[in-house]
Amino acid sequence: MIGIQKTTEKNLMVFSGRAHPSLAAEVSEILGTPIVPTAAYEFANGEIYVRYEESVRGCDAFVLQSHTAPINEWIMEHLIMVDALKRASAKRITVVMPFWGYSRQDKKHRGREPISARLVADMFKTAGADRIIAVDLHADQLQGFFDGPVDHLMALPVLTDYIKGAYGGQQLAIVSPDAGRIKVAERWSARLGGAPLAFIHKSRRTDRPNETVANRVVGEVKGRMCILTDDMIDTGGTIVKAAEALLEDGAAGVVIAATHAILSDPAVDRLKNSPAIEIIVTDTLPIPPEKRFDKLTVLSIAPLVARAIREVFEDGSVTSMFDGHA
Amino acid sequence: MIGIQKTTEKNLMVFSGRAHPSLAAEVSEILGTPIVPTAAYEFANGEIYVRYEESVRGCDAFVLQSHTAPINEWIMEHLIMVDALKRASAKRITVVMPFWGYSRQDKKHRGREPISARLVADMFKTAGADRIIAVDLHADQLQGFFDGPVDHLMALPVLTDYIKGAYGGQQLAIVSPDAGRIKVAERWSARLGGAPLAFIHKSRRTDRPNETVANRVVGEVKGRMCILTDDMIDTGGTIVKAAEALLEDGAAGVVIAATHAILSDPAVDRLKNSPAIEIIVTDTLPIPPEKRFDKLTVLSIAPLVARAIREVFEDGSVTSMFDGHA
Amino acid sequence: MIGIQKTTEKNLMVFSGRAHPSLAAEVSEILGTPIVPTAAYEFANGEIYVRYEESVRGCDAFVLQSHTAPINEWIMEHLIMVDALKRASAKRITVVMPFWGYSRQDKKHRGREPISARLVADMFKTAGADRIIAVDLHADQLQGFFDGPVDHLMALPVLTDYIKGAYGGQQLAIVSPDAGRIKVAERWSARLGGAPLAFIHKSRRTDRPNETVANRVVGEVKGRMCILTDDMIDTGGTIVKAAEALLEDGAAGVVIAATHAILSDPAVDRLKNSPAIEIIVTDTLPIPPEKRFDKLTVLSIAPLVARAIREVFEDGSVTSMFDGHA
Amino acid sequence: MIGIQKTTEKNLMVFSGRAHPSLAAEVSEILGTPIVPTAAYEFANGEIYVRYEESVRGCDAFVLQSHTAPINEWIMEHLIMVDALKRASAKRITVVMPFWGYSRQDKKHRGREPISARLVADMFKTAGADRIIAVDLHADQLQGFFDGPVDHLMALPVLTDYIKGAYGGQQLAIVSPDAGRIKVAERWSARLGGAPLAFIHKSRRTDRPNETVANRVVGEVKGRMCILTDDMIDTGGTIVKAAEALLEDGAAGVVIAATHAILSDPAVDRLKNSPAIEIIVTDTLPIPPEKRFDKLTVLSIAPLVARAIREVFEDGSVTSMFDGHA
Amino acid sequence: MIGIQKTTEKNLMVFSGRAHPSLAAEVSEILGTPIVPTAAYEFANGEIYVRYEESVRGCDAFVLQSHTAPINEWIMEHLIMVDALKRASAKRITVVMPFWGYSRQDKKHRGREPISARLVADMFKTAGADRIIAVDLHADQLQGFFDGPVDHLMALPVLTDYIKGAYGGQQLAIVSPDAGRIKVAERWSARLGGAPLAFIHKSRRTDRPNETVANRVVGEVKGRMCILTDDMIDTGGTIVKAAEALLEDGAAGVVIAATHAILSDPAVDRLKNSPAIEIIVTDTLPIPPEKRFDKLTVLSIAPLVARAIREVFEDGSVTSMFDGHA
Amino acid sequence: MIGIQKTTEKNLMVFSGRAHPSLAAEVSEILGTPIVPTAAYEFANGEIYVRYEESVRGCDAFVLQSHTAPINEWIMEHLIMVDALKRASAKRITVVMPFWGYSRQDKKHRGREPISARLVADMFKTAGADRIIAVDLHADQLQGFFDGPVDHLMALPVLTDYIKGAYGGQQLAIVSPDAGRIKVAERWSARLGGAPLAFIHKSRRTDRPNETVANRVVGEVKGRMCILTDDMIDTGGTIVKAAEALLEDGAAGVVIAATHAILSDPAVDRLKNSPAIEIIVTDTLPIPPEKRFDKLTVLSIAPLVARAIREVFEDGSVTSMFDGHA
Repeated sequence: MIGIQKTTEKNLMVFSGRAHPSLAAEVSEILGTPIVPTAAYEFANGEIYVRYEESVRGCDAFVLQSHTAPINEWIMEHLIMVDALKRASAKRITVVMPFWGYSRQDKKHRGREPISARLVADMFKTAGADRIIAVDLHADQLQGFFDGPVDHLMALPVLTDYIKGAYGGQQLAIVSPDAGRIKVAERWSARLGGAPLAFIHKSRRTDRPNETVANRVVGEVKGRMCILTDDMIDTGGTIVKAAEALLEDGAAGVVIAATHAILSDPAVDRLKNSPAIEIIVTDTLPIPPEKRFDKLTVLSIAPLVARAIREVFEDGSVTSMFDGHA
Repeated sequence: MIGIQKTTEKNLMVFSGRAHPSLAAEVSEILGTPIVPTAAYEFANGEIYVRYEESVRGCDAFVLQSHTAPINEWIMEHLIMVDALKRASAKRITVVMPFWGYSRQDKKHRGREPISARLVADMFKTAGADRIIAVDLHADQLQGFFDGPVDHLMALPVLTDYIKGAYGGQQLAIVSPDAGRIKVAERWSARLGGAPLAFIHKSRRTDRPNETVANRVVGEVKGRMCILTDDMIDTGGTIVKAAEALLEDGAAGVVIAATHAILSDPAVDRLKNSPAIEIIVTDTLPIPPEKRFDKLTVLSIAPLVARAIREVFEDGSVTSMFDGHA
Repeated sequence: MIGIQKTTEKNLMVFSGRAHPSLAAEVSEILGTPIVPTAAYEFANGEIYVRYEESVRGCDAFVLQSHTAPINEWIMEHLIMVDALKRASAKRITVVMPFWGYSRQDKKHRGREPISARLVADMFKTAGADRIIAVDLHADQLQGFFDGPVDHLMALPVLTDYIKGAYGGQQLAIVSPDAGRIKVAERWSARLGGAPLAFIHKSRRTDRPNETVANRVVGEVKGRMCILTDDMIDTGGTIVKAAEALLEDGAAGVVIAATHAILSDPAVDRLKNSPAIEIIVTDTLPIPPEKRFDKLTVLSIAPLVARAIREVFEDGSVTSMFDGHA
Repeated sequence: MIGIQKTTEKNLMVFSGRAHPSLAAEVSEILGTPIVPTAAYEFANGEIYVRYEESVRGCDAFVLQSHTAPINEWIMEHLIMVDALKRASAKRITVVMPFWGYSRQDKKHRGREPISARLVADMFKTAGADRIIAVDLHADQLQGFFDGPVDHLMALPVLTDYIKGAYGGQQLAIVSPDAGRIKVAERWSARLGGAPLAFIHKSRRTDRPNETVANRVVGEVKGRMCILTDDMIDTGGTIVKAAEALLEDGAAGVVIAATHAILSDPAVDRLKNSPAIEIIVTDTLPIPPEKRFDKLTVLSIAPLVARAIREVFEDGSVTSMFDGHA
Repeated sequence: MIGIQKTTEKNLMVFSGRAHPSLAAEVSEILGTPIVPTAAYEFANGEIYVRYEESVRGCDAFVLQSHTAPINEWIMEHLIMVDALKRASAKRITVVMPFWGYSRQDKKHRGREPISARLVADMFKTAGADRIIAVDLHADQLQGFFDGPVDHLMALPVLTDYIKGAYGGQQLAIVSPDAGRIKVAERWSARLGGAPLAFIHKSRRTDRPNETVANRVVGEVKGRMCILTDDMIDTGGTIVKAAEALLEDGAAGVVIAATHAILSDPAVDRLKNSPAIEIIVTDTLPIPPEKRFDKLTVLSIAPLVARAIREVFEDGSVTSMFDGHA
Repeated sequence: MIGIQKTTEKNLMVFSGRAHPSLAAEVSEILGTPIVPTAAYEFANGEIYVRYEESVRGCDAFVLQSHTAPINEWIMEHLIMVDALKRASAKRITVVMPFWGYSRQDKKHRGREPISARLVADMFKTAGADRIIAVDLHADQLQGFFDGPVDHLMALPVLTDYIKGAYGGQQLAIVSPDAGRIKVAERWSARLGGAPLAFIHKSRRTDRPNETVANRVVGEVKGRMCILTDDMIDTGGTIVKAAEALLEDGAAGVVIAATHAILSDPAVDRLKNSPAIEIIVTDTLPIPPEKRFDKLTVLSIAPLVARAIREVFEDGSVTSMFDGHA
């Protein structure tokens, strides 16, 4: 047989953009391999420069970046990192974006809008991404936006395990702050012993002409500890009003739980001043010290991400991490 | 100036697969141009043969097909028609699929499932489709599955206009048979004077161990005429059970309304025998005489489709047909 | 060196659609690995659902499906299986289609026809196929329709070995039922000791005005045992008429041999009642018990397919299975 | 309505490579528009340089080139011309290649061969070609190698009209020099009053051990004027031997007819010295004066090509030029 | 003839991102058509939202955006605008980027760097761009980064016309601040009467060990008014040091001229305090009032951009604007 | 775990076109593995035929070809070799082109020119190339023309090491024959102890009306041994005139050094008769005996190419071969 034979080795290498270094550090520590040293900075006019300081030829690359504010900056850095890996001969490139930027723009609400979530998927494909790992997609259909495998991780077990520990002894109700997200609340209910569901219906008020939207609770919440769940908290307006409506309707208390803590202004103030007992989130997005406050509980997403990376690298099963759900 | 100059003409041509000839005929009549004569038949082993009997060179082609049973047959015919148009030099090819086949498989419910709705979009792209016209997508995100323009038509005005005429004088409630589709119900409510919302929550029953799922009505329906809405009726099981649950909860009556009348067995029997007063659907899918029955009202989708084709051909606005919604 | 190193393993996994389970079973048995357990069924409206019950991450997948009637159904299932493998992170996907559906539509016979065989190739590429294994293509040019490797297996040795055993002692002639397929007959002749060639020429009869096509034998067949060969038998009309023409011209006997036994109605009746002594086919397509009859000999294609799979998996040579021919 | 409106004009522009200027000139004259002035030459190391001397923005470009020797040179020039048109904003680019270079390499005869005819199609697509016009493809399947429209022109009517005029009064037979091309001979037969068919079968001779290939005539040719047809004449070896075999078998005479006159050495000598009465070809490839000889009749292909260009430009029908055949 | 015929109209529509509204306004005024009203803003987390307030179906869209700081923000807005146009059925989309963001990252200076300028080209292609218009590319090769037409406009005539007016009577020298850009200086020289060339060579100083780089003037500048030219001024460090070196070498005076005024900090201070008499730039990038100062002359690029848009729309010639150069 | 497991082996195989067999032989010897036996020849009409005589399934293929005259011939052979490898199931295909054909056509100098260097990159991608290895690109931007990794090897160390040995003791100056290539001269200067730079400026002579171009030396060369460097020598006209101009300006001597020795006529005569002491080149292109002459020194590029192939195969670092430069 002609040629030079050699057993094929694969090499897992972890890369990180600059948006959320503590998450990357934690993932790297759990995996037991350091983040690949990378030079990354802006030129004077804001153009981003990236260069890897180690050879990456032939590696199985996992590139972490958190799509947090300034979000366009970090997405562009993420794309540039993928381009550099492609041109430097990485064998396979997995984009790890715990929060998928622009995921809320997943459809045209009105004519002549973009579908930016698809654009983001296509841009990563163009840059050279072979696959995506993301946590709690805003809509499950986002998996179909990428032409390749998307490993969809769920923070649900992390969040519900915590809630079982803290509030397991009480009469719970699972409440969705929006009619469009009750399906997710159903999954919560299934994991929390079949707790009853409710949702908040925003409707025009016919009684008060100047106040056009009312938050009506649909479902039974009286006397129950309400777990108000969503995939993300951005400015917190909707969810805090929902909490208030629940208490008006006789709820025993309200706990807010969400995967992605965007916490744009004035979310922190709103949440602090809200009647919610506790706000539980994960760190898919960085939460700087000035945004942390007493009632806020931050659960680490790193173990989930690290395990998924290891399963992908070792051709194990990500699905099995969630009992077959995807 | 070198060359031969000529003013450019465009020519709208309408093509139809064999799945739903009456819809095509009605669209063609409204547009005022005949369906292009087409030879189409199966070879002995089931392979489909298609040939156009007129020159189609340079035309602006609109290819209608209804993705009804036998659905794989008709999708394949649709694809083959597009391929033949591409190779015969049609200038632009618009795929008109009032019901987007496989649209319910728009995400992975569990690991190792396909996302067949995206596959369908990609296959039409591969065959040569430039754009898609579809009615009432199962999820709005489907627009993002196609790499090109998707004109999303809404049957909502057609259905709600009918309901206003027939039930406008009564106290209405809008009910979603499933937690995941309440968002659509909200749109109905907005068009029907802000009627209150409700939905059916399927949960495990803790009281009866052998009967694991219960249909619980969430929201207030007592004494109201309930408009039970969904995007499609397949076997009718869910929606008929929902109707029963509503009446048990004191509803004054139930009217079922849906865009896509798949009506797989035993939908017709179930609906006939259900307590619903009326079932209102459109003819995006063919409804043969044997599936028609007294309580069933079929509204024509042809005027909507024809108008959209004309707007697309004349560079008008499809969005304006729906007050900017898409 | 930074990163986690691991020796790369590859894992051959065999998948099968529902069209021809016995062939898949035989291939799997020869290879010594079970078919991967797969849930596959139709929804009420005919949409196909598929899900793999084992992790397939990183595997070298071989997906068998027979493109038999209902052919559009099975092609769609095949495509959906590929999509599911791609999204579930299979490393390489080989589509095994012993009979390439729509392979006869490999050119435009007249204007405004599709080239469906190319469409099929493109759709598998779009779904995620990396390569194709097929048996006895209708035209060798089909290999060029796919943008990637196509392993073209030949049933010729299987069929001619059988014929040598059964008819080797007689004076043979190789006859093509159609002017367009004599090239294949030449290959048969080469393997059967240079037996003389003939073909059937269909022409307008000038002598009988009402009977416009005559089967004229071109070549010398008198007193010879004629091996009438084709790549497939569909309704059997052409080949049975050819057999009759041969006997009229003084052939000592006729044996029919073909790779693909489509056997659409009324092929079985025609063949049973034909003057041919024996009809020899392979099982690239399933032949149900009711289509089997005394004169029909079915040779197994499974050993050929299994060996090709193994060669592909082990980076061996498929070409060497056929003395360099492709 | 916002914007600046303007009626769209289209402009047919004809371009020509340097391989066959007389054909381009004739086509341009028939169309009534001059070839666009183009600078084209080689750099010292053989790299080709091309530049158009008129603006081509927005034009409907038809780019003629004959794939004759030095064939790689002319194909590359053709590709570079397409690239320059794409980058100079031509609106639509039609590649006109009367002879499709590498068309004989349309399949893998043996393992590890290229399929160069597909490669040529793909390279033109990559360079920017929207469509192809070609004459008498070596195999009809080549149409399927290009992902877009291919207008397949047939020289058959041109050739058979001439033959009817010159030999119409005689008893004809149509003979294929090769088993693989009898299908084409059938089309000839159909246009020449159903003349009988024959073909030459190359087989191993069992009687003379040192001479391994014999040309056996299959079919009846005695006393007939044989029209020996092929799509191309390269070195002429096969066809001249076929002519000799026909006369040995008692043919009254032999006329050779082919579309593509490649005429590689020593074709001219062979044909001159052959017993054929006349050799009839078209000028899809240039035939320089030194290759012309008394018995050679060259029919012009320009009227056919010019008419096809006009039909394509004016959205007419190319198929109708050939009674629906493609 | 079947179908509905209509003469094709085209409609030029101009769109603008939010980076440089005054340039867009001026272009729109010269063209005589208003910018299409567009809603554009950021969500709380920085995600950009865009929607067109007029129908854009079938239009010939020109989308202007200046890639200025915050550059990633504006590039993303530009991409999203293109995506929205594609999905809203614009017929053709021309991206107008007077300054091509990331154009300096057009090659790998060292291993494992990205080629971000190519990435930008690919992302616009992915989003749906058909063509690009840009001014004074950092390297001419950038045209080859985009798979489609790139109209490369040159500010050179605008700048040199001004200089001829202001300094035409003096003895000029054209100086490049960097060895890599002398080719551009040669073009300046050609338009300014063949003025002699010089460049600044940065080298290690062997005489002063602690100061490792010296600016050495290569070429003769004594007593001449030096026109120091570059394609862009970013922080101004290099060019101001070059000006100082020229005066040290006996230049009579220094005028700085550049197309793209990036003017990142501390460019304004450096230029103000530099010995240069005048700094001449264009407004391809916005120059806010606080960055303007006495010695700074800003020439408008709008007439050039507007004329190019009109030529593209009307199928005129952009090349002819620059005497054939591209 | 279901399936058949096997450790993955990779196999380096080296292929060579016919353009430069001695370079391939030397590379193969250094690597210690023979060139894969390959049948390659022209058909009578110049079409190239290629076939590999060993199985290449699953191999890591490196395909060498020198893009020398007849350059279109050899580029086409190179493309066909890649196509054959792709279809024969090579796992990864690296195109090794020491000289990238058409690399000088990397931009549009004037409107309506092609960008042939990008076309070449795209054609190799289309044929199936995964990556490119090339030596001393005409412009670094060419790396960005290919959508994948390009390993850019530099002959600079080979050339400068030789020059240090031969001329290290003298006062050197580095001279660029063209204003556009001084950047390269700067790299030479850096490796040769910071030798001063100069370049030749071609300008219109105002003193002699009939002689329009003068070669003016810009920079100080008096008394120095000038190393006149370029990436390639084609006809030698420019560089020989530059040598003469240097001596006229008082240079102590001139040595010419270039990577690519195209040596088109009349380069050899010009160089022989030039005043240059020595001409130093590498063998990236074949230099036949009749083009060799006394003053010509040819350094072997094979060790560099062989080392790069080994680094690529073993996932080592190519960048590290050049201290991080790329």
